[in-house]
Amino acid sequence: MIKVGIIGATGYAGGELVRILTAHKQAEIKWYGSRSYIEQQYASVYRNLFQIVDAVCMDDNMKALADEVDVIFTATPQGLCASLVNEEILSKVKIVDLSADFRIKDVSVYEKWYGIPHPSPQFIEEAVYGLCEVNRERVKGARLIANPGCYTTCSILTAYPLAKEGLIDMSTLIIDAKSGTSGAGRGAKVPNLFCEVNENMKAYGVATHRHTPEIEEQLGYASGEKVLLNFTPHLVPMNRGILVTEYAKLTREVCEEEVRTIYEKYYGREKFIRVLEKDACPETKWVEGSNYVDVNFKIDPRTGRIILMGALDNLVKGAAGQAVQNMNLLFGLEEAEGLDLVPMFP
Amino acid sequence: MIKVGIIGATGYAGGELVRILTAHKQAEIKWYGSRSYIEQQYASVYRNLFQIVDAVCMDDNMKALADEVDVIFTATPQGLCASLVNEEILSKVKIVDLSADFRIKDVSVYEKWYGIPHPSPQFIEEAVYGLCEVNRERVKGARLIANPGCYTTCSILTAYPLAKEGLIDMSTLIIDAKSGTSGAGRGAKVPNLFCEVNENMKAYGVATHRHTPEIEEQLGYASGEKVLLNFTPHLVPMNRGILVTEYAKLTREVCEEEVRTIYEKYYGREKFIRVLEKDACPETKWVEGSNYVDVNFKIDPRTGRIILMGALDNLVKGAAGQAVQNMNLLFGLEEAEGLDLVPMFP
Amino acid sequence: MIKVGIIGATGYAGGELVRILTAHKQAEIKWYGSRSYIEQQYASVYRNLFQIVDAVCMDDNMKALADEVDVIFTATPQGLCASLVNEEILSKVKIVDLSADFRIKDVSVYEKWYGIPHPSPQFIEEAVYGLCEVNRERVKGARLIANPGCYTTCSILTAYPLAKEGLIDMSTLIIDAKSGTSGAGRGAKVPNLFCEVNENMKAYGVATHRHTPEIEEQLGYASGEKVLLNFTPHLVPMNRGILVTEYAKLTREVCEEEVRTIYEKYYGREKFIRVLEKDACPETKWVEGSNYVDVNFKIDPRTGRIILMGALDNLVKGAAGQAVQNMNLLFGLEEAEGLDLVPMFP
Amino acid sequence: MIKVGIIGATGYAGGELVRILTAHKQAEIKWYGSRSYIEQQYASVYRNLFQIVDAVCMDDNMKALADEVDVIFTATPQGLCASLVNEEILSKVKIVDLSADFRIKDVSVYEKWYGIPHPSPQFIEEAVYGLCEVNRERVKGARLIANPGCYTTCSILTAYPLAKEGLIDMSTLIIDAKSGTSGAGRGAKVPNLFCEVNENMKAYGVATHRHTPEIEEQLGYASGEKVLLNFTPHLVPMNRGILVTEYAKLTREVCEEEVRTIYEKYYGREKFIRVLEKDACPETKWVEGSNYVDVNFKIDPRTGRIILMGALDNLVKGAAGQAVQNMNLLFGLEEAEGLDLVPMFP
Repeated sequence: MIKVGIIGATGYAGGELVRILTAHKQAEIKWYGSRSYIEQQYASVYRNLFQIVDAVCMDDNMKALADEVDVIFTATPQGLCASLVNEEILSKVKIVDLSADFRIKDVSVYEKWYGIPHPSPQFIEEAVYGLCEVNRERVKGARLIANPGCYTTCSILTAYPLAKEGLIDMSTLIIDAKSGTSGAGRGAKVPNLFCEVNENMKAYGVATHRHTPEIEEQLGYASGEKVLLNFTPHLVPMNRGILVTEYAKLTREVCEEEVRTIYEKYYGREKFIRVLEKDACPETKWVEGSNYVDVNFKIDPRTGRIILMGALDNLVKGAAGQAVQNMNLLFGLEEAEGLDLVPMFP
Repeated sequence: MIKVGIIGATGYAGGELVRILTAHKQAEIKWYGSRSYIEQQYASVYRNLFQIVDAVCMDDNMKALADEVDVIFTATPQGLCASLVNEEILSKVKIVDLSADFRIKDVSVYEKWYGIPHPSPQFIEEAVYGLCEVNRERVKGARLIANPGCYTTCSILTAYPLAKEGLIDMSTLIIDAKSGTSGAGRGAKVPNLFCEVNENMKAYGVATHRHTPEIEEQLGYASGEKVLLNFTPHLVPMNRGILVTEYAKLTREVCEEEVRTIYEKYYGREKFIRVLEKDACPETKWVEGSNYVDVNFKIDPRTGRIILMGALDNLVKGAAGQAVQNMNLLFGLEEAEGLDLVPMFP
Repeated sequence: MIKVGIIGATGYAGGELVRILTAHKQAEIKWYGSRSYIEQQYASVYRNLFQIVDAVCMDDNMKALADEVDVIFTATPQGLCASLVNEEILSKVKIVDLSADFRIKDVSVYEKWYGIPHPSPQFIEEAVYGLCEVNRERVKGARLIANPGCYTTCSILTAYPLAKEGLIDMSTLIIDAKSGTSGAGRGAKVPNLFCEVNENMKAYGVATHRHTPEIEEQLGYASGEKVLLNFTPHLVPMNRGILVTEYAKLTREVCEEEVRTIYEKYYGREKFIRVLEKDACPETKWVEGSNYVDVNFKIDPRTGRIILMGALDNLVKGAAGQAVQNMNLLFGLEEAEGLDLVPMFP
Repeated sequence: MIKVGIIGATGYAGGELVRILTAHKQAEIKWYGSRSYIEQQYASVYRNLFQIVDAVCMDDNMKALADEVDVIFTATPQGLCASLVNEEILSKVKIVDLSADFRIKDVSVYEKWYGIPHPSPQFIEEAVYGLCEVNRERVKGARLIANPGCYTTCSILTAYPLAKEGLIDMSTLIIDAKSGTSGAGRGAKVPNLFCEVNENMKAYGVATHRHTPEIEEQLGYASGEKVLLNFTPHLVPMNRGILVTEYAKLTREVCEEEVRTIYEKYYGREKFIRVLEKDACPETKWVEGSNYVDVNFKIDPRTGRIILMGALDNLVKGAAGQAVQNMNLLFGLEEAEGLDLVPMFP
C-alpha cells in the first residue's frame, strides 16, 4: 500500500485527489495538509466525503511528511513546493508537484512569466514533465514530477502528433481555450462569485497567461523548433471542463485519412486519449469526472488550415487524475489504477 | 457474472444504469434496448461511453431478452413494463422496473393518478417495493421489483424513522421538493430547453403530481395510518439532484438528541443513508454522482414543528443506483457492489 | 428633478438602483456612495454602466448628503442606516432604507433576531413599512421608509388577501422560499463562489432566518392575530428570482372562483401584481428584470389546504424597484415612473 | 405611430422584438404572426408579457399584412421571407428581414452555404445590409433590409476599423466565437435540452458554418480584397451573449495608442459601440439585455498578432435590437428610440 501525503488538500485539485485516491486500491492517504483548516475534520470542509474520509487536516510540513509517506502531492500556489523541497526530502520520498514550479526548464522564463524568483532552481533539471503519454518512460524513474497544468495538458495533447510529424506550421499556431470555473480555485474573490460568472463569458490573461511558455516549450520539443504562439484562455459558466480550439496552417496538402493515421500512430494504444470519429466535435460533458482527453480535427481546404479540438476535465486529466497516473507510473502500478472513472452524463 | 438487459437504455436513467454497470464487477450488460436507436452504436448516443461500450442498440423485446439475461431493468414510460411482463417471463428472469407500474398496491389508485388502465394487475401483489433500506429482506426473494421514484425515495427516507416512531402528526405533513432537470427525461420538449429552464424556477403538478400516492402509501405503512399529504415538486436549473424540505407537527415535545437517536436507530448501519451532523443542511452537490441520501432535521420550538431535509442524486439513488442496489440484493451480492461512487465536488 | 443619493451603491441592490434610476425621467443620481470604492469611477466597478454613468464613488457621509439631495437610499448592511440617521437629517431629506433597521416595530424582536442593539429606536415608530400595495397612503406622507426585504415582499403579497379575509388558518401557514444567489450580496465568500452554488441546492437559516419576524408582523396586521409560522429559505443556482410556495389550511370550504374574486378585490387594480390565470404556476423568468410579482394558488380538496405561489425579481420588486416605487409615492410622481420594465425572456 | 407586423413572433428573436417594441414610443405592433400558435393569446406563449400584450397570434400572411402595417419584421427560418416577398408588397411596406435571405450578394454563394435555391434573387441587389454603423445612409432609403446575423454583427464590428485601415493581414484572420444557447432558437431538439447544454461546451459547424461567407463578404468590402477566413462557433451554457476572439497578423508595427485612435475614428461617435478602456476584456454580462457591442484589443509583440475581442447580446444587437435600430433609420426616427436599454447586471 503506497502511503500518500497531500499538501494543499482543501483546494479543488486537492479535493479531487482525495476523491480519486479514496477509491484507489493500492494507495492510502496518510496526510491531509491544509494550512487554512489545521485540526479541522477534512469532511467538514468537503462534506461530500462525510463518512468516507475520517481524518483531520494537518499543517504543510513537508519535512515531517517525508518520513511518513512514499509520495507527496503538492496542490499549492506557485513557489510553495520549490521553497520546501530539498535533497534530503527527495532522497526519502517521491514528489508530484501540481504547481508550475518545475514545469519550465529555463529558469529565466519561469521568473519572467511568474514574476517570482525560483527558490530551488537546482532541481529543475532533474524534474520530469509528467505528461504521461509523452514522457512515460522518463516518469518511471523520476524523483520529482512536474505535473502539467490543465490548459497545457489539453493544448499540447491536441496538437502533439501533428507538431511531431511536422504537419503544421508552428509559427501559425493559435490556441483559443475555454475553461470552467473550478480552474480559478477556491479562493474567495469577487470575480469568481456565482453572480459574476453565471450567464457571463470573457477572455482573460490575453497574450500574457502563464501557461503560454509551458505550451511553447513542450510543443517546441515535439516540433524540434522554437515555438511562439497565441494562447487565449476564457472563463465559461460551468464547474468543470476545458475545451481548446487550435488553428494552424498545414505544411502540405493532406487528406482526412492521413491525419487520422497520424493520430492513431501516437494515440491508438493510449487508454486516456480518445480520437473521436470523423466530424464529432469534443464536448466537455463527455469527459466529465474522468481522466479522458477527447480530440479531433477538421481540415478546411478553403483556408489551408486545420482546426484541432480537445476536451478534458480540468480537475482530473488536467490535475489530480494525471497526478495519480504519474504516481502509478512512479511505483510500477497499473497505469490506469484508480482512474477507471466512467464520464458522467448528464 | 450476472447477465443484464436494459429496456430504455438511452433515456437518462438508462444511461446511468450503463455508467454504473460498466464498472460493476459481477454484472455484464448483454442487451441495450432502445426502440428509438435500434442498430445504432450505443456510444454514438452517449459519447461519454465512446471506447467504453461497444454495442449496438436493440429492440425492446422482453420475451427474447428473458432467454438471454438474468435480470431486466425497464427504464421506460409508465405502462410499458406492465404491458410486456407475463408469467413465462417472470419464471425465467428477474425484473427491476424503474417505472411506476408496480409501485402502488391499489390498482384503482394507480389508474386514477396515472390515467391509464393497468395492463397486468395480477402481478401487483407479488411485486416488492424496492426501497432497500426499508424492504431489504423482501427484496431478496422477489421476482419483480418496483423500483421507487426519485422524489419518493427522497421524501420517504427523510421522514421514515419519525413516521415509524409516531413522532410526527402525519395529517400535518407537507413535502416541498425541488429537482434538477434530468428528472424530466430526455424527450425533446420546449419546456425542457436550456433557455427555458436556465435562470428559472417554478412549481408544477401542484396537488396533482403522480408521486403523491406512492409517498402516501409507503408512509402509511410506516405510520400505521392512512396518510394524505401535500407534495409539491419544483423544477430547478441544474442537471442532477433532488432536495426535499418536509414540515410536520411533532406529536410531543422532543429534544434534538432524542430525534437523533431515532434516526440512528434506523439508519446508523445503513451505508447509503448519511444522517448529517447537527445544523448541517443537506446539499445536493454533496451526493452528486453517488448512491447516498443525506438527511437532517431541525426542531422549531416556536411553532412546534420539525423541519426535515433530504438530498439525493435523482439518477443514482433516485433511479439507477437504487436499481443496482436491488439487483445486488436479488442475486445475493454485496449490497454496495458497483455503488462505491464517491460524490463529485465541485 | 429629484436629486438622489445612494449609500451602498456598489452592492447588487445599489447597482440595480443605478440601473433603474438612470432611466428614470424625474430623478437624477447625485451621489454614488461606496465606502469600498471611494474616488473610483462607478463604471469601473459595474462596467455595464460604461459610457452611461460618469461619476466617481463617494464616502457614506449621510450628513453631507442630506444637504445635497432630496432622497437617500441606503442599500447597506443591518445597523448602518439606523446608526447614521437623526432628526436633523430627517428634517432635510427623505430616506428609503433597504436594510431591515426600521422594518420591525418591536425593538426587542429586532434585537433578538438580528443580534445587535438598535442604534436609533426613536425612529421606529414613525418609519413606514414600504410595501406600496398595502401601505400606499401612509407611504405618501412619510419621512422614513423601511423598504421590505425580498423574501418578505414575495411571502407577504402572496398570502395577504387570504390572510386579510380570514380564509386561511394562520397557525398552519408554512412558507417554503427559494432564491437566486444575488440575494446573498456581492461579498467575497467561499459559499457564494460559482463552483459552490452551481449545480447545487440547499436550505439555510432553517427556523432562524431573519425575515421570519418581518413576515409574521405584517401578516399579523393583515389577519388581526399574532402569527407564528415556518419560513425556510433555499439557495438555488440562478442569479435573480425568488419563488415562494406557501401552504395553509382553509378555514372553510371554498371554490376556485371565490378565491380568485378575493385576489381580484385586492390586486385587480394593482399594476405590479399579476394574478395569473387558472393553473398557471408563477415562474421567476416571467418577471426577471421587472417590478412585477406574479401570484397564483391551487386548492387541494384532498387535504383541505390551499397552496399559494409567488414570484418576483429579488433585486427589483424585492429591493431597488420597490424602493423607487416608494420614492415615486413620496414625491407625488406617477407610481410606475421608471418602472415600466418589461420582463426579459429568455 | 408606425404600425409594425412581425412574422415569426414566437421565436426568441420575435419575442425580443415584442419586448423592445412594447416600450417603443413611436411604434405599435399590429400583427403577431406565428403559424404554430394561430389564435392563441400571445401572452400565453410568452407569459412574461401577461397583462402587457393583449393580442392573439395570426397567420404568416405577408400579403394581408402589407396592407395593414408600415413595416414587417420577418424573424423566420431561411427561405421564408424570400419566398413571400414580391414587388407589390415592397411597394407598400418596408421589410426588415432577420433571416439570411438577402444578406449575401452572390446568389451562388447563398445557395451553396444554405443548400436551398434562392426563391427571389431579383431583390438581392436592392436589399441593404443593415449593419447600421457601417451602412447608415444606405439603410435610410431602403425598402428591404437584410438584418445581419448575431455572430456576424459581432465578428464584423470587432474587426471593421482595422480591416478598413489595412492594419491587419486579412489572410491571417481567425474568428473564434462563443454563443449562448438562445441563438439556437426555440425548436424542441435534444441537443438544446437543458441537461445537454448545461455544464457542457463544444464547437460546432467547424469550417462550415453559414455565417462565414457573410462575414467574409462584409470584411471584404471593408478591406477591399477577397477575404477567406476561419470562423468557429461554440455553444456555451448561458442564455444570451456572444463573445468573439479574433486573431490576425498586424501589417506593420503599431502601438496601443495608434490602434485606439483608429477605433475612435470609426466608433467614437457611435452610441451602441463601446471601445473599452485599455486591458478591459469585454464580458457578455456587461451588455446583456442592451443594444451595445463592447470591443477591445490587445497587441502581442511576441507574435506580431493583434487579438480583438467583441461582445453583444445576440437577441438585441445581434437580432431584434439592430432590427429596431434599422426601423428607426428607415422612418427617420431618433436612431436610439426604444433602445435605451441599460445592460442588466447581474
